[in-house]
Amino acid sequence: MEQIKIVIAGPRGRMGKEAVALVENTEHFTLVGVIDRINNGKVLHEVEGFTSNAPIYSDILMCFQETKPDVLIDLTTPETGKFHTEIAITHGVRPVVGTTGFTKEELDRLSAMAQERQLGAIIAPNFAVGAVLMMKFSQMAAKYFQDIEIIELHHDQKLDAPSGTAVKTAELLSTVRDAKKQGHPDEKETIAGARGADYDGIRIHSVRLPGLIAHQEVMFGGNGQMLSIRHDSFNRTSFMSGVKLSVETVMKLDLLVYGLENIIE
Amino acid sequence: MEQIKIVIAGPRGRMGKEAVALVENTEHFTLVGVIDRINNGKVLHEVEGFTSNAPIYSDILMCFQETKPDVLIDLTTPETGKFHTEIAITHGVRPVVGTTGFTKEELDRLSAMAQERQLGAIIAPNFAVGAVLMMKFSQMAAKYFQDIEIIELHHDQKLDAPSGTAVKTAELLSTVRDAKKQGHPDEKETIAGARGADYDGIRIHSVRLPGLIAHQEVMFGGNGQMLSIRHDSFNRTSFMSGVKLSVETVMKLDLLVYGLENIIE
Amino acid sequence: MEQIKIVIAGPRGRMGKEAVALVENTEHFTLVGVIDRINNGKVLHEVEGFTSNAPIYSDILMCFQETKPDVLIDLTTPETGKFHTEIAITHGVRPVVGTTGFTKEELDRLSAMAQERQLGAIIAPNFAVGAVLMMKFSQMAAKYFQDIEIIELHHDQKLDAPSGTAVKTAELLSTVRDAKKQGHPDEKETIAGARGADYDGIRIHSVRLPGLIAHQEVMFGGNGQMLSIRHDSFNRTSFMSGVKLSVETVMKLDLLVYGLENIIE
Amino acid sequence: MEQIKIVIAGPRGRMGKEAVALVENTEHFTLVGVIDRINNGKVLHEVEGFTSNAPIYSDILMCFQETKPDVLIDLTTPETGKFHTEIAITHGVRPVVGTTGFTKEELDRLSAMAQERQLGAIIAPNFAVGAVLMMKFSQMAAKYFQDIEIIELHHDQKLDAPSGTAVKTAELLSTVRDAKKQGHPDEKETIAGARGADYDGIRIHSVRLPGLIAHQEVMFGGNGQMLSIRHDSFNRTSFMSGVKLSVETVMKLDLLVYGLENIIE
Repeated sequence: MEQIKIVIAGPRGRMGKEAVALVENTEHFTLVGVIDRINNGKVLHEVEGFTSNAPIYSDILMCFQETKPDVLIDLTTPETGKFHTEIAITHGVRPVVGTTGFTKEELDRLSAMAQERQLGAIIAPNFAVGAVLMMKFSQMAAKYFQDIEIIELHHDQKLDAPSGTAVKTAELLSTVRDAKKQGHPDEKETIAGARGADYDGIRIHSVRLPGLIAHQEVMFGGNGQMLSIRHDSFNRTSFMSGVKLSVETVMKLDLLVYGLENIIE
Repeated sequence: MEQIKIVIAGPRGRMGKEAVALVENTEHFTLVGVIDRINNGKVLHEVEGFTSNAPIYSDILMCFQETKPDVLIDLTTPETGKFHTEIAITHGVRPVVGTTGFTKEELDRLSAMAQERQLGAIIAPNFAVGAVLMMKFSQMAAKYFQDIEIIELHHDQKLDAPSGTAVKTAELLSTVRDAKKQGHPDEKETIAGARGADYDGIRIHSVRLPGLIAHQEVMFGGNGQMLSIRHDSFNRTSFMSGVKLSVETVMKLDLLVYGLENIIE
Repeated sequence: MEQIKIVIAGPRGRMGKEAVALVENTEHFTLVGVIDRINNGKVLHEVEGFTSNAPIYSDILMCFQETKPDVLIDLTTPETGKFHTEIAITHGVRPVVGTTGFTKEELDRLSAMAQERQLGAIIAPNFAVGAVLMMKFSQMAAKYFQDIEIIELHHDQKLDAPSGTAVKTAELLSTVRDAKKQGHPDEKETIAGARGADYDGIRIHSVRLPGLIAHQEVMFGGNGQMLSIRHDSFNRTSFMSGVKLSVETVMKLDLLVYGLENIIE
Repeated sequence: MEQIKIVIAGPRGRMGKEAVALVENTEHFTLVGVIDRINNGKVLHEVEGFTSNAPIYSDILMCFQETKPDVLIDLTTPETGKFHTEIAITHGVRPVVGTTGFTKEELDRLSAMAQERQLGAIIAPNFAVGAVLMMKFSQMAAKYFQDIEIIELHHDQKLDAPSGTAVKTAELLSTVRDAKKQGHPDEKETIAGARGADYDGIRIHSVRLPGLIAHQEVMFGGNGQMLSIRHDSFNRTSFMSGVKLSVETVMKLDLLVYGLENIIE
């Protein structure tokens, strides 16, 4: 396979560290440089926790000129991410961006820029392929099963219930599912909350226990059967399969795609 | 194994039918008669749906005199069940009773009667051995894990939430568990009910979907681990293992035991 | 919704009985007749176990002439099913066929006949929508996750292991998955069989326990995550959702479709 | 609660680090010293990764004399562990030992020593309370359900299948379960290994997938029902609940106990 030359912005963050490891351990990926606001001019292995020989740049333009990358993986902050994305497209470097916070206007403008240059670009708020597939499959199943309950399970340090993923799943489901009030019409909670949160008739149950990490199960009930789709996220390396897929896919695209679900067939 | 001679009261009910099949299919059990308010004097196979040769009696005393049973399995109504239990103990027949509704006074009186005669007797509101074990194990685990959530799942024709079994489980757990408010102290429901019903700090979630039957999972979370105990009841034959166990156990008892959990070690 | 006039062939079989109940209980379905080799000329409610007023015909042609159905649901035997399907297409009645055993030649010929008349027709060896979705989603997921294990669980009266559905799932998966020997290259079974059946590198585990019905879980593992897709079939009414979907879909088709997976988007 | 003064041997190992954190974070535990072959005379926070003020000793006797601990937590190697245990008992310090490799003779001799001094001591090869409970409950359930299958799931870097825990569980089960060949007498594997490993009639299935950690489910099937007991170990802090329980329990014992299962009621 042809080598893909990659620059990573934000190498010292938690996701950034995993991305450096991913690129170093993937045969057809080459880490040609990293962008970091400190350590300019050093080599990455001079920074604690790294062994790579990639040079560090504080200036994105100098980095692009000297390393001539195919792809920029950006795992910085929303503000920096937007800035980097625009420069990358302008200079013919395909961006794979994991930051959130792009407005519709910003996405439209970047889309037009990529289209004009016929350059691939991917912006994805969630890189966990398994979680994206869980949502996609659930949306497909909801056409055939109207009765749906979601159980999401997280560690007990999580503040909000239901989780963002559970609410987003229910949102997606309600766009395709025929409206229905689930359960028996006369059902009664003898203790309040037993039947969970009600999102457009879909029930969401939030389990919080020490020891757990991040898990979600979407259950579909029908005549004499149940279909369940479950995703367990055990640690943040789960995001790396999506980063890898995005780098490989962005090389074949000639436009900007938003959301991993749209590059998954 | 020595044969155990058995009379069944209430053979035409749903549980009764299963009990007839159980006794007929168990090698060391013999069905010597049934008690039914209709069909007195007939043989069971004259009634649709049965193949047994056991004689039918409307009069319990005549039945006992003629068939001399070791054990009476009573699956009738609460009122009839109480009446039968008393007569059985008086006549030296060991009762295995699956009806509910005994008051504490009635249990005390029947207990004293059994004790006086040193006769075994078992009264059990729930004969599903698996469900009883689930509750017993949960109670044991609650000494070591304070953080507990219960998910119970039933068909969507069920009216009440949480289920009776879930509430009974939470009751048992709260007797051994150190009091604790679970979840993050600042956790917040963005949709009401997400965190389920709160029973003394234990959270209960009730799933209702067509297709499901009767299922319950008790989850214990701790440092880096989870312990789960689950019972799935697929149909009412699940009760028969408890009836069989009770018949075998009642032959060795010399007093009355209330609740299957008290004959399970 | 417009009424769909339906004839059912094979009403007294296990699937047939469920299909009669389905049609009778669906608002926009009307049961206009049934085809049975006995009871010609009677009305269905004269046969034990039925309450419908549909007339019974032994002759399929007379049935079609008198009842003018839109759809034939055929749940008979392979031989009769083939015969009925051909007559139905010839007479402009859209067939929904649940029997198996069609050869490729037979399917091709029936396809051509349907095409010529621009008539919808559906032949499906498996009507359980949930099981079909499980297979379809698994096939999609296998593009992104190479490491796959299948656990199928059935009652202990089942003779063959793995189940037909598990083998079919593995077949489908191996068409899209990059070949891979799973597990550690040096892994060792200290007791033979621990790692399950090996189908082209995919592992299949067959659990057999009394009490169970028919269940299958397909598990995909990747970096720090797991995706699982599970189907539980609790009883044969699970097939009826597929029959209903097929009847509704066949009205909009103008060709023959083989396999439920091909009408599910 | 009264303070328990604790010394930890092996603080720099993976378990040792967790134990230091446990003791520091438990209100009624005080870390009065650690035993390490290097860094003698320093304070623990001078070693990278620690913040505790506990003094470091290379000499166990000097450590005991100066810190007068109630309990020694030993997480070193088998050889050192044996040596430390003996000295601790001799000096009236209650040992909680997590190393393996004690022979029956060694255990007998240490037992006699503890008995003589009426001193509590705990030696436990597995400190994961959840895993120990899973095994204990399974053993209890096996008296009532003869049909048992074990599924153990681990990451794909694991070399042996089945896992040690699965084999130990099957061993325990076979001591209480009536012998039985499970499955249909005529069942047939169409692909070898489908029915898993056979341990005295109990079937064990080993799943290996990247992403997984260490999981085991014991499934019991009976008439119309299933009982399942599952343990998920997400990381090694799962051992710490057992260490904490052991420290609290050893203070109330006046003899040596081997195996966490024997202090769990």
